[in-house]
Amino acid sequence: AMPDGNAEAGQTKAFSCQFCHGTNGVAVKDGYPHMNGQNALYLYKAMKAYQNDERLGDYGKMMKQQLSALNDQDLADIAEYYAKQP
Amino acid sequence: AMPDGNAEAGQTKAFSCQFCHGTNGVAVKDGYPHMNGQNALYLYKAMKAYQNDERLGDYGKMMKQQLSALNDQDLADIAEYYAKQP
Repeated sequence: AMPDGNAEAGQTKAFSCQFCHGTNGVAVKDGYPHMNGQNALYLYKAMKAYQNDERLGDYGKMMKQQLSALNDQDLADIAEYYAKQP
Repeated sequence: AMPDGNAEAGQTKAFSCQFCHGTNGVAVKDGYPHMNGQNALYLYKAMKAYQNDERLGDYGKMMKQQLSALNDQDLADIAEYYAKQP
């Protein structure tokens, strides 16, 4: 199950996400998902899917690499942060 | 590449999506993604990923089945419809 996420901690941990997803979750490029206001549990499950090889293809590989150093608490914090962005 | 999507046609084609994603793209259950205001190209690519076995796991199987009868134009129309919801 998803740990309790902390949005403040998530903002710091989401540093490398901003280059595609924006600092506020509004994607910087066509074709990338917006994450602001998204459901936090969904975001967490999507990131776990990348870690668990359930999302394949080029973006799957890239995202798995991006998330490789993050633990479940990190993912929950990041998910909470983006979910809380307007 | 993604065909030009038609939101009006997409609303009709998205009939079976509403039971999880809501008629307006606001997910009806915790853990399901909101799709209102999402990037249309991303939605299209996500649906193609399900069709192409690039999204696995329980939800991957379920979504692939949901999308099995839809062609690229259908997906583009559905993507455009949800992207346009406030």
